[in-house]
Amino acid sequence: MLFILNGPNLNLLGLRQPEIYGSETLFSIQQNCEKVAKASGYTLDFRQTNHEGVLVDWVQEAREKAKGLIINGAGLTHTSVSLLDALLMLSIPIIEVHLSLITNREPFRHHSFITPASKGLVAGFGASGYTLALRALIEMVNNQE
Amino acid sequence: MLFILNGPNLNLLGLRQPEIYGSETLFSIQQNCEKVAKASGYTLDFRQTNHEGVLVDWVQEAREKAKGLIINGAGLTHTSVSLLDALLMLSIPIIEVHLSLITNREPFRHHSFITPASKGLVAGFGASGYTLALRALIEMVNNQE
Amino acid sequence: MLFILNGPNLNLLGLRQPEIYGSETLFSIQQNCEKVAKASGYTLDFRQTNHEGVLVDWVQEAREKAKGLIINGAGLTHTSVSLLDALLMLSIPIIEVHLSLITNREPFRHHSFITPASKGLVAGFGASGYTLALRALIEMVNNQE
Amino acid sequence: MLFILNGPNLNLLGLRQPEIYGSETLFSIQQNCEKVAKASGYTLDFRQTNHEGVLVDWVQEAREKAKGLIINGAGLTHTSVSLLDALLMLSIPIIEVHLSLITNREPFRHHSFITPASKGLVAGFGASGYTLALRALIEMVNNQE
Amino acid sequence: MLFILNGPNLNLLGLRQPEIYGSETLFSIQQNCEKVAKASGYTLDFRQTNHEGVLVDWVQEAREKAKGLIINGAGLTHTSVSLLDALLMLSIPIIEVHLSLITNREPFRHHSFITPASKGLVAGFGASGYTLALRALIEMVNNQE
Amino acid sequence: MLFILNGPNLNLLGLRQPEIYGSETLFSIQQNCEKVAKASGYTLDFRQTNHEGVLVDWVQEAREKAKGLIINGAGLTHTSVSLLDALLMLSIPIIEVHLSLITNREPFRHHSFITPASKGLVAGFGASGYTLALRALIEMVNNQE
Amino acid sequence: MLFILNGPNLNLLGLRQPEIYGSETLFSIQQNCEKVAKASGYTLDFRQTNHEGVLVDWVQEAREKAKGLIINGAGLTHTSVSLLDALLMLSIPIIEVHLSLITNREPFRHHSFITPASKGLVAGFGASGYTLALRALIEMVNNQE
Amino acid sequence: MLFILNGPNLNLLGLRQPEIYGSETLFSIQQNCEKVAKASGYTLDFRQTNHEGVLVDWVQEAREKAKGLIINGAGLTHTSVSLLDALLMLSIPIIEVHLSLITNREPFRHHSFITPASKGLVAGFGASGYTLALRALIEMVNNQE
Amino acid sequence: MLFILNGPNLNLLGLRQPEIYGSETLFSIQQNCEKVAKASGYTLDFRQTNHEGVLVDWVQEAREKAKGLIINGAGLTHTSVSLLDALLMLSIPIIEVHLSLITNREPFRHHSFITPASKGLVAGFGASGYTLALRALIEMVNNQE
Amino acid sequence: MLFILNGPNLNLLGLRQPEIYGSETLFSIQQNCEKVAKASGYTLDFRQTNHEGVLVDWVQEAREKAKGLIINGAGLTHTSVSLLDALLMLSIPIIEVHLSLITNREPFRHHSFITPASKGLVAGFGASGYTLALRALIEMVNNQE
Amino acid sequence: MLFILNGPNLNLLGLRQPEIYGSETLFSIQQNCEKVAKASGYTLDFRQTNHEGVLVDWVQEAREKAKGLIINGAGLTHTSVSLLDALLMLSIPIIEVHLSLITNREPFRHHSFITPASKGLVAGFGASGYTLALRALIEMVNNQE
Amino acid sequence: MLFILNGPNLNLLGLRQPEIYGSETLFSIQQNCEKVAKASGYTLDFRQTNHEGVLVDWVQEAREKAKGLIINGAGLTHTSVSLLDALLMLSIPIIEVHLSLITNREPFRHHSFITPASKGLVAGFGASGYTLALRALIEMVNNQE
Repeated sequence: MLFILNGPNLNLLGLRQPEIYGSETLFSIQQNCEKVAKASGYTLDFRQTNHEGVLVDWVQEAREKAKGLIINGAGLTHTSVSLLDALLMLSIPIIEVHLSLITNREPFRHHSFITPASKGLVAGFGASGYTLALRALIEMVNNQE
Repeated sequence: MLFILNGPNLNLLGLRQPEIYGSETLFSIQQNCEKVAKASGYTLDFRQTNHEGVLVDWVQEAREKAKGLIINGAGLTHTSVSLLDALLMLSIPIIEVHLSLITNREPFRHHSFITPASKGLVAGFGASGYTLALRALIEMVNNQE
Repeated sequence: MLFILNGPNLNLLGLRQPEIYGSETLFSIQQNCEKVAKASGYTLDFRQTNHEGVLVDWVQEAREKAKGLIINGAGLTHTSVSLLDALLMLSIPIIEVHLSLITNREPFRHHSFITPASKGLVAGFGASGYTLALRALIEMVNNQE
Repeated sequence: MLFILNGPNLNLLGLRQPEIYGSETLFSIQQNCEKVAKASGYTLDFRQTNHEGVLVDWVQEAREKAKGLIINGAGLTHTSVSLLDALLMLSIPIIEVHLSLITNREPFRHHSFITPASKGLVAGFGASGYTLALRALIEMVNNQE
Repeated sequence: MLFILNGPNLNLLGLRQPEIYGSETLFSIQQNCEKVAKASGYTLDFRQTNHEGVLVDWVQEAREKAKGLIINGAGLTHTSVSLLDALLMLSIPIIEVHLSLITNREPFRHHSFITPASKGLVAGFGASGYTLALRALIEMVNNQE
Repeated sequence: MLFILNGPNLNLLGLRQPEIYGSETLFSIQQNCEKVAKASGYTLDFRQTNHEGVLVDWVQEAREKAKGLIINGAGLTHTSVSLLDALLMLSIPIIEVHLSLITNREPFRHHSFITPASKGLVAGFGASGYTLALRALIEMVNNQE
Repeated sequence: MLFILNGPNLNLLGLRQPEIYGSETLFSIQQNCEKVAKASGYTLDFRQTNHEGVLVDWVQEAREKAKGLIINGAGLTHTSVSLLDALLMLSIPIIEVHLSLITNREPFRHHSFITPASKGLVAGFGASGYTLALRALIEMVNNQE
Repeated sequence: MLFILNGPNLNLLGLRQPEIYGSETLFSIQQNCEKVAKASGYTLDFRQTNHEGVLVDWVQEAREKAKGLIINGAGLTHTSVSLLDALLMLSIPIIEVHLSLITNREPFRHHSFITPASKGLVAGFGASGYTLALRALIEMVNNQE
Repeated sequence: MLFILNGPNLNLLGLRQPEIYGSETLFSIQQNCEKVAKASGYTLDFRQTNHEGVLVDWVQEAREKAKGLIINGAGLTHTSVSLLDALLMLSIPIIEVHLSLITNREPFRHHSFITPASKGLVAGFGASGYTLALRALIEMVNNQE
Repeated sequence: MLFILNGPNLNLLGLRQPEIYGSETLFSIQQNCEKVAKASGYTLDFRQTNHEGVLVDWVQEAREKAKGLIINGAGLTHTSVSLLDALLMLSIPIIEVHLSLITNREPFRHHSFITPASKGLVAGFGASGYTLALRALIEMVNNQE
Repeated sequence: MLFILNGPNLNLLGLRQPEIYGSETLFSIQQNCEKVAKASGYTLDFRQTNHEGVLVDWVQEAREKAKGLIINGAGLTHTSVSLLDALLMLSIPIIEVHLSLITNREPFRHHSFITPASKGLVAGFGASGYTLALRALIEMVNNQE
Repeated sequence: MLFILNGPNLNLLGLRQPEIYGSETLFSIQQNCEKVAKASGYTLDFRQTNHEGVLVDWVQEAREKAKGLIINGAGLTHTSVSLLDALLMLSIPIIEVHLSLITNREPFRHHSFITPASKGLVAGFGASGYTLALRALIEMVNNQE
């Protein structure tokens, strides 16, 4: 199984600042990702939460269930050492996704706490970034086996 | 309806460091605010939580239900990008309240992550700041209609 | 008596960058404030100057004549230690007003030298901020007596 | 009663980066601490959570129930002003514990937000640090009575 | 036509620090990219140079010939304003590629001067990053037409 | 009419540190400028003051009387937000002049507060910089009409 | 003749924060200084102003009239490049006086803009610092002749 | 002979970001400059390159051939110590030109490495800045002879 | 044998700033430590010096004689690279002790140069910190054998 | 008794960089100081050392023997927390002397670690600064009795 | 074979700022080095360029031909990550040479990008530094064989 | 006579961190240096101390006895202004030696306080650096005579 975990406010994707994040919803992203996963023979667990603690719980859960993980930490990307610590405990490949190119935005969005745990980074492609990252993740997982 | 949202530890107001925060409780503040709101014909939804994620949920809820919002982010003011992101999705007027004058305190309290989403700021008036802000909010909301 | 002191360029209010400062003039603000003061039984001394030294002189004058003081230091807010020193000599309540939310503007406007002498801060409400602050000041002065 | 509160990811202790944190589990630490507490005639409430808000709730609970508190904030140590604010409300002795010597690790782990509320600090002793801190806490509590 | 431009020292790829950059050569990357491009009906112009000035010349050339551009600036990423200025003149989509996750390396590699001109960023996938980026670029170019 | 405004200590030009500022006096600069203005059919108002407030008053005056303005803020260049605010209210072209190349001097002279209001900058040409700037200003003013 | 120039708010000396500045008035300081000057055969010109521009004018005046100058810039010490520029034009000895030890106070009082023009610095002796400095100044002036 | 040397991307002037750089081409600038030079009896060598090394070569060439030099380093202004070192070897007057007011743009454009070698600076006048600088250069060169 | 080494001014412990350091003397600390050591069968060498060089000499001596070392560097903690270098040469366990919680004091006391050589850190427990550290040290030494 | 303590290299005064420190020797300074002390009925203990530890020892000695202390820490001024700690233990008045105006020299000489323990500061008067400081010290000591 | 590579402007050595760089020419340095190399049985390839890209090409060439390399990056020392990247690919010993002691010059010359690839550093010896470094290099190369 | 002075912990050379400092002892370095000195007809005074004050004493001694000085300040390099002040008093050539390339190590080892007094710097050559520096020193001394 593969995990795709989404942080705060991504549930409102498509409704908010479309000039930055695009107009596609998180649900349609989920559907696209499920197609990609299915085509490669993987199940997908796609979730979203506004709670840092829940995100940490889920990453710990991924430690036991998932073969690979994609994470869009949203606002927590820039503030959560706890999320980094959870990710550092995994030995599966982790890909970090951002809808926008965060280093082109406000200074407090330039730094990602979770990158030290990431194997790859995909940013600036909007909704397409998820399937891009998922294909790369599947390739990594397949290569490891 | 108008929302007044309160962050971590404000439930203990009046019990803690009265030389900084004053000795009035959050409940008496709520009662004062409800009188002001009622006098202007508005209902008030007044809440407090210690959880960043819950605060984000409530701000998202305000997006659909409220005509104006007052927020005292307390400790999260200085650490939560997720809270800012939630507030940035609202198009209703937002007023930021602090009991104390935060730039006169420790350096880590000088910066507020949520100000970029705020229309007005009221700080240093203790409990009175809430009704001050509420009256200003009601004026803004009335003017918009 | 209450003092409201205004710093450089506020005499041109309403003529300049209305997207930041609004279109109301300083004279109409003065008139609104005088109504509020009168209704509470206070006289008001409302002044403006482009000169730091004059502002310092006036603050010293307030030391002897006023029961409360509102100050909009304008550009001097960010540069004048002398103004701070003058304000620190008063024992009456001082409220700092800014038309715009200064921490949302250029970095050199984020820091206020005079806040250490202020009891309360009102920012971002445009012209309404003056009457907001004045009502709060009157409440403070009344409570002290 | 004495409280020992543990922050995010400490539930996985012993499974994660043993070269940094050692190989003992949180449960065996709890057992060792309970023995020490019992020997001195104290009950112990030993808890762990991945949620900042829950940790704040517990600290508030300690305010009414505990005579002393040991906290290992884990990742929240470096990011949570809310946790500091909660701790600042307690008048019982607080001891901060870290498994590793945090100032010898990544720069973002050098600063602890919660130290201003701490009476003592024990770091770098791995699992033994808990019983070390507990013995010191008991001595403090006994001395106060 | 699509351009893929490579900066200094990438000609030695596969020979140098394989623990950071992987062991695939630039020529085999070029071949993989040409297959991907061909499959989508695009010609590819794939080049490498050690000279900043030549890279600027090529970007200017892309302005007239290419429908999309991928750039791996290598060491120049962190030092060349001239390269940024050249890229800012293009109106075609630009994707920035890095073999390694540069923010996990030495501090002087954390900042990219050319990101302000980039639409998307792919980093940390080694040689695979090129085809990943190329597929995304082709999708962008197709969508624009 | 065109305005040329000079800040503190420029009245002593020619008497002070000639290795930095040259040996020409402010009066001879004024005479040269008046010749240039006259030749193009413009009157010139050339003034100097040691008082920040007076300089602000004059800039406000220029708002109503002048078609173009040259300013040498001298020491106030590096310290006066009030001067910047006054200049930002003008819609006529503004040229900033410095006798010396300020970024080659002490660090506190490197930053100019007033540049955000300036259309052009001329520095390092000593007394000649004034006529250089004046010719450029006249060209700008003529082009606007 | 010798000049002693005093900056903003020093006219209120003795009335303000006596724990920092002492309780002696500026007038009694002036009288002590005049006695010291007279005893050495010098006239003294002792002045105070709240206006930066006036202080600059006076320093320029000292350039023609005085054989030595003592300056207590008060709040302008930390903000006025114009005052430094005026002092740099003098060739007579200049002594900088501060009542308190400014580097033991708030960070914004640590830096003095005018020290580069000063020959000697006397700080922390309260009112006595003036006569201390004056005696040293007289010695310097006598030695030069 | 006089040299005017232009750095990277200036060959595309008039085609790129006209809101910043204006719409005149480098060739028309060259023609205007040649007229000015000719009128004063000077030949002009006007060149452009995208290569830092070539620019250094040309500055070295100017050392033997030119009586004065104007340089617009473009992007290399902010990154090239080598260019500064080359310029420091000349004893002829050097004027630095920028089309835009660089300190009003992105922070990485605020600092110029080559200013320590410049005698004068002209910025913000667009294409007119070249002839402005050339006239000033000719005056300098004539005065030296 | 175990070493406990104390830096400058600790000889005056109990006489100085008791609100920070407590009122126990260094001699009574030594006696408590000797009891603890004796109970575990260890001799103790307990010393104090005001001289950095002597402290370095003693650390070098410990390299040959001691099985474990406790160090309270006092003021040298924040300034001595030489002390760090000496400690880095030991392979026995080292514990760093501070009477107060140094990160709650002046900024220049926040950084410890010697922590990179320390295995554990005990701070804020006053005189008790020594026996706390000694017990931990004995446990470490026993475990190694 | 009064103490005057001198730090490293001051034994060579008069031999070294006379343009900074003057040409008077430390011995002649001592003689001048002894005259001043004697005239006021005080004995003087005037010492110099190159050793930080010795200076700390002497400050501790002053704690028991002296009624007032003057210190010129020389190079240790900028590096020794141990010296500060020793001085903080004294309750007698302490005056800090520097021959040169240290904030006008290299940046690493701007900061004095020992100022927080000083009551007054005299800098820039060369050898005369000692007698200046001594007279002020005697006045302080006399006033205290 | 051994390589000695020289960066921008070193071709003009002896003509430029002799107070910093000495008056010997690059050609005479080359001759001295050739003598030293010959005496030890090595051929020498001694080159200079003003082009960063050419320098990178040469370092890559050294990778195949040279047994040891000396580099004086001149201005590129402080700006070129590309040069560092090229040097990091070599496994032969590399010695960095600077004519002057760069940390005693302007701040932007203090940092060398290429030091992480260097085995030894020789600075401040002027022309003699080359032969000094060459002798050390030959010793290293001989020892490796 | 020539002096070679060694700072703290160098007496243990060869015993400590051989991967950084090499395995040769200080005594064998001394022997090699004595051979080199003798061959050129110089006596050598080779010393080591762990005490900053002793090192300062020796540098003062060199002022009278030595014709040249080599110094390896070890840890004091990064912390001792007193050592710099002592060195600044010498007019003989001074060469600074470091066994390792200090700018490739921890950030606090990047800065050397004593470089402003050094004529040349040799770093990274281990024990060989001493004879390298000694040969260069002898050449300097011979050239001066």
